Amino acid sequence: MDVYWDSMSNAPQLPAGFPAVVAWSSAGVRLLDQTRLPADEIYLDINNVADLEAAILRLSVRGAPAIGCAAAFGVVLIAREVPESLSGEALKKELDRRCDHLIEVRPTAVNLKWAVDRCRAVAHSQFAKNVSRTTLLLALESEAHAILEEDRRMCSAMGAHGATLLQQLLKGKKSATLMTHCNAGALATGGMGTALSVMYASQQAGLTLHVFADETRPLLQGARLTSWELARAGIDVTVICDNMAASVLRDRHPDMVVVGADRIAANGDTANKIGTYGLAILAKHHGVPFYVAAPYSTFDLTLKSGAEIPIEERKRSEISDQNGRLAVPDNAKVFNPAFDVTPAELIAGFITERGVLKPPFA
Amino acid sequence: MDVYWDSMSNAPQLPAGFPAVVAWSSAGVRLLDQTRLPADEIYLDINNVADLEAAILRLSVRGAPAIGCAAAFGVVLIAREVPESLSGEALKKELDRRCDHLIEVRPTAVNLKWAVDRCRAVAHSQFAKNVSRTTLLLALESEAHAILEEDRRMCSAMGAHGATLLQQLLKGKKSATLMTHCNAGALATGGMGTALSVMYASQQAGLTLHVFADETRPLLQGARLTSWELARAGIDVTVICDNMAASVLRDRHPDMVVVGADRIAANGDTANKIGTYGLAILAKHHGVPFYVAAPYSTFDLTLKSGAEIPIEERKRSEISDQNGRLAVPDNAKVFNPAFDVTPAELIAGFITERGVLKPPFA
Repeated sequence: MDVYWDSMSNAPQLPAGFPAVVAWSSAGVRLLDQTRLPADEIYLDINNVADLEAAILRLSVRGAPAIGCAAAFGVVLIAREVPESLSGEALKKELDRRCDHLIEVRPTAVNLKWAVDRCRAVAHSQFAKNVSRTTLLLALESEAHAILEEDRRMCSAMGAHGATLLQQLLKGKKSATLMTHCNAGALATGGMGTALSVMYASQQAGLTLHVFADETRPLLQGARLTSWELARAGIDVTVICDNMAASVLRDRHPDMVVVGADRIAANGDTANKIGTYGLAILAKHHGVPFYVAAPYSTFDLTLKSGAEIPIEERKRSEISDQNGRLAVPDNAKVFNPAFDVTPAELIAGFITERGVLKPPFA
Repeated sequence: MDVYWDSMSNAPQLPAGFPAVVAWSSAGVRLLDQTRLPADEIYLDINNVADLEAAILRLSVRGAPAIGCAAAFGVVLIAREVPESLSGEALKKELDRRCDHLIEVRPTAVNLKWAVDRCRAVAHSQFAKNVSRTTLLLALESEAHAILEEDRRMCSAMGAHGATLLQQLLKGKKSATLMTHCNAGALATGGMGTALSVMYASQQAGLTLHVFADETRPLLQGARLTSWELARAGIDVTVICDNMAASVLRDRHPDMVVVGADRIAANGDTANKIGTYGLAILAKHHGVPFYVAAPYSTFDLTLKSGAEIPIEERKRSEISDQNGRLAVPDNAKVFNPAFDVTPAELIAGFITERGVLKPPFA
């Protein structure tokens, strides 16, 4: 089954009225400020790249694909800001310098570099044609829109495949209980998310859903973001602490656990937010199928297995500081890995924009 | 092996200088204020039962056995406070009324009622003998000391049995990695704890320990209390988020997971702090032996299995309010069970004051 649509008119979409996480107008980039969620739904109108960099740095926009979309529009802002006086090699050099600066805001965010480099290449080809500044800006704007639109389609395609899969698992049942970890949703992408796209598409297909969202310590993306966007879309969502997942898996027996991914090796081993590995073991123990939803761009076939994926450690204060209150005494250590690796054998399948796949990937 | 000592001189003990969680002097009860941990080590000197009730209510003292010890001294305070003018039936009635009031501060804390009733029975028997107020007070003080001392011995005995078990598991190794959940330590008892008694006794037996402590959401007893008391005792402790346990079990392969228990059924099913069940599954998956340390009083043989243990749900704000910051939007639900039940088949054994046992219990 191929669900790449020529038009998006019949593709799964976010419910009407769902806010755009990244949007563009002639005034600049509009971002839903994720640092203010879930308490406030505030939008940032950003008309210069310095403000955009600051917004990316403080996680007002987060999630690799969403950062990529925002950064693509950032290159338009850069092209606007490069002094009119420059031209030729000097213009190119100055634009490159500013693009590199944007990339360095979050050096480990693969999509940030990918999106900026893609837009930069468009600029270079325009420079080669010696076009006007207006033409350059239009070409860059068009490329950024293309990146956003591709991301939207990719998410919708994942959602469609995931919803089909879920309906197969349900064998005619019209309601489903799902579980997820962290935030692999609309807030993390230019579209309807990766793992959460399955939920939005299933809802649109007429299923009644109940979702358990792990709060996802230490940064609480599940509590703050996943529950916000699902509830905003009218999906019944219940937040639990990560350590309650085993009880919920036993007592509520979800139809599916679905999570996103940061990086997938050729053998299917998957790096994702810390806690994913444990959740996969618990799902297996309770006979609940565990799926990963991720676009092709997340598969890194240069890695044979998860053993080659480096695990970033984050700072102590994420665990020891409870919004200003000391939670761990200074003479105790803290271990704070950002990710873990779930071995392929715990994963029932990979929901991608081209269908549900199983490893090995080639 | 029986390790009930006639004197405590050769029993495992907390390291010298470790603070008393509950102590008594002629001035009254001294409590280590656990609400101030881990930031501050503050003691409360309490000379009236109203203040003691307030301290129990706000969790300045917590953990069933520690509450029991504090409440036993509370009955001494009550006996001091009952008006001198009362005698006979009127005196008994007034003391009973005040004892009932103390019990009702935390109605689900079994040890609170048990300790108050035990002291009350002493008072009744003294009333029957028509003794002086001074004699009554001395008898009550003596009973409270006996309760504290019994708790201390029970903990030491558990520690000794647990340390012997750990040494068997280590097969000659002199260092061990352990993992625990929540706080089943000195802070929860009148002695050296239940699960953590194994660590203190092992340290005293010359083993070098490294302990991973789950932070234990939502109330963070692991981060705040377990890490505080282990570090205070010079034991190397690392706090992790609950969702990191699977990674640590895989990568560090602890020699043992040991936790406390709130209630144990005749078949060995064990209710304990939420997250214990998931941790037991993860330990099993990684071939790490999972032990429960609990005194005889925790075994409830009127319950055939864990299915009969009611699971208390606690309030939403424990999860949705992050020390004053909204962590879950109002239109999302929260599920907050306080406990879970670990089936006996996941538990390698029960470390009690009389040795390491296996179910069924009779």
